[in-house]
Amino acid sequence: MYKVKVYVTLRESVLDPQGKAVTNSLNALNYNEVTDVRIGKYMELKIEKSDRDIHEVINEVCSKLLANPVIEDYRYEVEECVAQ
Amino acid sequence: MYKVKVYVTLRESVLDPQGKAVTNSLNALNYNEVTDVRIGKYMELKIEKSDRDIHEVINEVCSKLLANPVIEDYRYEVEECVAQ
Repeated sequence: MYKVKVYVTLRESVLDPQGKAVTNSLNALNYNEVTDVRIGKYMELKIEKSDRDIHEVINEVCSKLLANPVIEDYRYEVEECVAQ
Repeated sequence: MYKVKVYVTLRESVLDPQGKAVTNSLNALNYNEVTDVRIGKYMELKIEKSDRDIHEVINEVCSKLLANPVIEDYRYEVEECVAQ
């Protein structure tokens, strides 16, 4: 069993209106030291061992369903763990 | 200037219907090795140095605006970086 942590972020060149709204809210709450917020997704997957390569599976899953490769980048970390 | 990475996840005891939907979609696409998905948020903040302690600022910001402490946990990493 693998525990996979996937981080999906908007590409640098893509505007992030949600992050901008959060920045403005924080400034309105007097946290003026916060100058920029960018919002992404964080996902934890549990994947069972199979005959396919784990990295191949993760890359397919990320590019097909979890991230939109046109506007988003993703990276991931794999931890091997004992099934419970 | 600090670059802060914030990870917000649902507490273990809270059901995650969005993650369940993603698990089902992946299984329907024949990724049967994926047994569980939990979805959280990932945020990158840029925070300028001020006279307040950076950890105090981050904890306030997270518990007031970025995470809902009733159902979510958060953790963060701070990187110090040179302003551009």
